[in-house]
Amino acid sequence: MNLDFLGKLATPAETKMILLVLDGVGGLPREPGGPTALEAAETPNLDRLAKEGICGLHEPVGPGVTPGSGPGHLALFGYDPVEYHVGRGILAALGIGFVLQSGDVAARGNFCTVDETGAVLDRRAGRISTPESGRLCELLRDIELSGGGDLFVEPLRDHRFLLLLRGGGLSPDIADTDPGKTGVPPRPAAARGSAAREAAERADQFVKEAAKRLAGQRANMVLLRGFSSLPDFPKLTDLFHIRAAALACYPMYRGAARLVGMEILKSGGCIREQITVAGSRWDDFDFFYLHMKPIDSAGEDADFGEKVRIIEEADASLPELTALKPNVVVVTGDHSTPASLGAHSWHPVPALVWSDICRPDPVDNFTENACLSGALGARFPATDLMPIALANASRLEKYD
Amino acid sequence: MNLDFLGKLATPAETKMILLVLDGVGGLPREPGGPTALEAAETPNLDRLAKEGICGLHEPVGPGVTPGSGPGHLALFGYDPVEYHVGRGILAALGIGFVLQSGDVAARGNFCTVDETGAVLDRRAGRISTPESGRLCELLRDIELSGGGDLFVEPLRDHRFLLLLRGGGLSPDIADTDPGKTGVPPRPAAARGSAAREAAERADQFVKEAAKRLAGQRANMVLLRGFSSLPDFPKLTDLFHIRAAALACYPMYRGAARLVGMEILKSGGCIREQITVAGSRWDDFDFFYLHMKPIDSAGEDADFGEKVRIIEEADASLPELTALKPNVVVVTGDHSTPASLGAHSWHPVPALVWSDICRPDPVDNFTENACLSGALGARFPATDLMPIALANASRLEKYD
Repeated sequence: MNLDFLGKLATPAETKMILLVLDGVGGLPREPGGPTALEAAETPNLDRLAKEGICGLHEPVGPGVTPGSGPGHLALFGYDPVEYHVGRGILAALGIGFVLQSGDVAARGNFCTVDETGAVLDRRAGRISTPESGRLCELLRDIELSGGGDLFVEPLRDHRFLLLLRGGGLSPDIADTDPGKTGVPPRPAAARGSAAREAAERADQFVKEAAKRLAGQRANMVLLRGFSSLPDFPKLTDLFHIRAAALACYPMYRGAARLVGMEILKSGGCIREQITVAGSRWDDFDFFYLHMKPIDSAGEDADFGEKVRIIEEADASLPELTALKPNVVVVTGDHSTPASLGAHSWHPVPALVWSDICRPDPVDNFTENACLSGALGARFPATDLMPIALANASRLEKYD
Repeated sequence: MNLDFLGKLATPAETKMILLVLDGVGGLPREPGGPTALEAAETPNLDRLAKEGICGLHEPVGPGVTPGSGPGHLALFGYDPVEYHVGRGILAALGIGFVLQSGDVAARGNFCTVDETGAVLDRRAGRISTPESGRLCELLRDIELSGGGDLFVEPLRDHRFLLLLRGGGLSPDIADTDPGKTGVPPRPAAARGSAAREAAERADQFVKEAAKRLAGQRANMVLLRGFSSLPDFPKLTDLFHIRAAALACYPMYRGAARLVGMEILKSGGCIREQITVAGSRWDDFDFFYLHMKPIDSAGEDADFGEKVRIIEEADASLPELTALKPNVVVVTGDHSTPASLGAHSWHPVPALVWSDICRPDPVDNFTENACLSGALGARFPATDLMPIALANASRLEKYD
């Protein structure tokens, strides 16, 4: 549903909500006919919440679409991730915890290889390693722009890096310099409107100077894509009158939470510590977002057994969470990460919503297959979760 | 689906359709693990229709959104209630059976209390009673507008009243005078465009004169909101070539039916009498909408046992309805009204569609939980019901 429409129905209440994101929790059977990691795990506490609550499987972006962590989380927060788009440059900056300012322009860079005519030979310079990218970033960090303004160059994973331009309120409407194929030269950083001319000129200067400094190396050129600025999304506090707090150990998730107006609370990272911090700040907030990363990491490492083990660890922490006596608990993932694929996937993600007034369905097991017959539906838009959670928290008024 | 699109597929047929609305039929268990009212009720006839038909649960407006009766009914009639919005003033007029004319402007009023500086102290004047509102309305009814034009003031429930301005083809684009909070004075009735200037001036005059006449009372001022005119919705006859009749004992439902072009038939009110009237006019119409209010009333009165009893009464009347030999029967509610909440709620609403050609699903029980595994889906938009009913009535052509 449209956020503005829902926002008009929002009403304050004394209720507490918890969104626990088990990152990458959905999966696939390791062998045909076998259980998924969630099915293999012993999860008595999740099963109890499933039994008392309502279950289903959601699609974060849409059918068949594999979500990145940014879009996946925005959907859980109630924001359609296609409409509320975050540029690749900004996502990269959020991912390394770079503190962004309004008016910054960020782009995601690749180190690449060009031939003597300037045509791209390899868009990833042989997928150079993260440390090697770090070394190359050092070479580019002190490039000075003739017209002034600051620039920041930070290594990302493998051959990727972040370019950030700051100073003078820049506009990011700039075409990618990455041609998306080999055999042709990189494109100029072309402004798509006059407002972006200044930022485009700075990006172009950076590229030319980078080419000089990288000359002779395997990675002898850079490609830029996803020029973007910090988006100005409506904030949860303004939309729904909820004071929301985020507890997440990775910068990417803290960044996504900040985009929707959550306050970032410090915690050591593990789920138990997050629950303790939430409890210590219980009166200060209405909504707590807790993020558990290692389930996704085990999936990405293709480690089925580890994924099972960490799901059981998450389950074991749930009694501490429910001891806080929240009115509404939502447990789900931001996407599936099957260990057999070793990557994010498009498979619908198990979800449960628990409250005293949710009208429990017959599902009494928090697994992919059990969730198929739940009241939330077998394949529902992830953005439904926030209005359903708000309704269960008595925070939406009747629509007349 | 878009109404225009569906309308282009509509084709006349000799089939008869019945939509039986069991107002507020969805519910919640009275105690954890217990049955809902629909589950507790003995409903052999509904169960037979469920067994031979297809079932599911719909959301009238959207996930988490609690529908008012107006939006809930528009959705059942096939009209997206967000797109086909009816203003509060018009809804209030429909609710008391006020016969509206094109060009009327209606607003919903509150009697309120202001302090000596004019700031609102209590937006509801201590929630004065309906009879007290009636007495106050008498004081305002003969206010004369200097520029001419009629006005009508009618009591609604508690502290609420209807203001209706008539004469000269007025436009309703006027901001609420209700500031929505205390401590500030009411706002002027401001036209949001030049077309509404005349109506805004009349509303302002009314407010000033009302303040004079109410001086010294606890309810010493009025607040107005939801200025609106009779919306010009496409009519079912034009869209789908169906002659539709409404049998409903409360004005609100007759009003909603009139908005979509139904003819209002007189009947004493009870479901059995409605069925008799439908039978007596069987040849004159293609579509009969029957409305049974007391199930919702029992829910709003938080009377679980009474809700069970009236559901059983509805069930007992079904053989007379099916004896009319309709081609399609739809049974559902316009929203849920759990007795445990004593109010409308967002919970999905059980629905069944019966016809000879519906491809029955395995559901053989008309309850919230049984409907979860039905062919209509566990959480589908209520606006799907009308096209599915039309298809089952052989009234939609192939889309090429």
